Amino acid sequence: MVVCKKWILAKAFSGHPDSSNFRMETEELPDQLKEGEVLCEAIFLSVDPYMRLFPVPPGSVMMGEQVARISKSENQNFPVGTIVQSMLGWRTHTIVSDPSKLNKVPDLGDLPKSLALGAMGMPGMTAYFGFLEACCPKNGETVFVNAAAGAVGNIVGQIAKIKGCKVVGSAGSEQKCKWLKEGLGFDEVFNYKTTPLEKALKDHAPQGVDCFFDNVGGEETTNVLKHMNKCGRAAICGSISQYNKEEKDKGELPYGPMLMNMLRVKGIQGWHHVQKWPEGLKQMLLWIKEGKMKYKETVTEGFDNMVSAFIGLFSGQNIGKAIIKV
Amino acid sequence: MVVCKKWILAKAFSGHPDSSNFRMETEELPDQLKEGEVLCEAIFLSVDPYMRLFPVPPGSVMMGEQVARISKSENQNFPVGTIVQSMLGWRTHTIVSDPSKLNKVPDLGDLPKSLALGAMGMPGMTAYFGFLEACCPKNGETVFVNAAAGAVGNIVGQIAKIKGCKVVGSAGSEQKCKWLKEGLGFDEVFNYKTTPLEKALKDHAPQGVDCFFDNVGGEETTNVLKHMNKCGRAAICGSISQYNKEEKDKGELPYGPMLMNMLRVKGIQGWHHVQKWPEGLKQMLLWIKEGKMKYKETVTEGFDNMVSAFIGLFSGQNIGKAIIKV
Repeated sequence: MVVCKKWILAKAFSGHPDSSNFRMETEELPDQLKEGEVLCEAIFLSVDPYMRLFPVPPGSVMMGEQVARISKSENQNFPVGTIVQSMLGWRTHTIVSDPSKLNKVPDLGDLPKSLALGAMGMPGMTAYFGFLEACCPKNGETVFVNAAAGAVGNIVGQIAKIKGCKVVGSAGSEQKCKWLKEGLGFDEVFNYKTTPLEKALKDHAPQGVDCFFDNVGGEETTNVLKHMNKCGRAAICGSISQYNKEEKDKGELPYGPMLMNMLRVKGIQGWHHVQKWPEGLKQMLLWIKEGKMKYKETVTEGFDNMVSAFIGLFSGQNIGKAIIKV
Repeated sequence: MVVCKKWILAKAFSGHPDSSNFRMETEELPDQLKEGEVLCEAIFLSVDPYMRLFPVPPGSVMMGEQVARISKSENQNFPVGTIVQSMLGWRTHTIVSDPSKLNKVPDLGDLPKSLALGAMGMPGMTAYFGFLEACCPKNGETVFVNAAAGAVGNIVGQIAKIKGCKVVGSAGSEQKCKWLKEGLGFDEVFNYKTTPLEKALKDHAPQGVDCFFDNVGGEETTNVLKHMNKCGRAAICGSISQYNKEEKDKGELPYGPMLMNMLRVKGIQGWHHVQKWPEGLKQMLLWIKEGKMKYKETVTEGFDNMVSAFIGLFSGQNIGKAIIKV
């Protein structure tokens, strides 16, 4: 008998997530699979801020992606040992009756399979397609990325460097700033907790911002838009400053600055381009192998600690991608 | 001797423009032109809301476009009688030393030459390029235009009809609404002074808005964005609700709705596409001649009445394009 552990959303989020929002349950899965079925055993699970924004109904298993190993199979297309990535939720074991919905993880060689939850998965593809299509960065332009040490932001900054841009990033600790500048080659970085945004942009992007990749939202977004150059492009990828607020920030509306400088601002989601992921994954893997794209993971050991890893996202505990190792 | 009348911005705008912002002056122009010069005599002048947004320095002649007749010429490329359109400001007579900056008005046949300030000029090209490039309307989609009886809005609605869209428009009087629906073929119209926006959009665009062409700004813009469909496109063309406010509206920020529905919002300005105007003007003239594009002008007689025509823009006095006939 296989016993699956799973995290349930015990009550709807309200304000900052805490442990009372979750409860763990176990579920006994049948030993016998039916024709076509496979049993997936989670190896790595992902926690991402979007899970606060698109929560499941209370009482359901939390949604989310995992990298799993097929440990039993009645489907010849998915033999035992196959490594897949899929939106199976916060659970250790899952019987999948239609494995065609599972994504086989490509051969990553010596690279960790958890990359399929980071640079080689949703955050990477959000950065790749979202940044390139919404921001259209050109050689020599100035790019500003906030929450730049996060799972998506650090990849955006690295793509911008590859595209020949000057990259300015903000993050919430000296350690993160150091990694962005020394580890990833960002041109300018600042700690948003110690430097006011307006001063930082004047100092680090005196020529104005051409491309803005926004993970933060709220009034910060408007203030960056006001610092953008004519015909600048912005991608709205996340609003982590807002997710835990019951009353969203009110503030000066951005339509005046958008009109004066003919800005283009676009909301983006990683899954929207899923049909084109293979192309993006191929490029990303090449960049990683060439050493042009570096990655960092903050790994939490143990499925039981998944909730604290999730909660930690909102206080900036992670550097790079937050991963749970079962 | 030629005496030119001109309107000076006497003091910077603050709040709603009134007659104290302006003074009339006269200027004596030399009788003798130099080699290459021409004398332009205004026939029609334009007043547009943008003049409140991009004002000239106090003490200068107000900026703006006019249609003028060359009444003296020392330039063989611009003989007497040539009709031109140019940004010559609020003045009756102008000596132009570099006529290459003047735009010759194409042969409009029996159509009024004032169209070069409306459908065949800046408002028309703002509608044409701004709407098509920022909103990318597709056959069968729902388009919402506010201030739809204004110089730009009415043209946007008509282009949207030509492109096979369902068009919903708002305006500030029953007379304007009637013109939009019965005169121009808008599918749905409402009077924003008597119908709250949210109710109006629910009633007239229950399927959601795919393309939004915004002339109004402020909280109305956010509220329309919240009613848009996935991957909707918005053009921010004007913010007439805001121009006369010293304190701009604050309100709920739009980044959440933009992210959830992957909206694309772009600020647009008519002059930005000036290199491509010939293509747009050709199409517009064809539509006018085919009867697919109708036009309406609110004509104020007399250069002396130009200020009151300008002030009237902000209380919605004009239907269609506001024109001053000298």
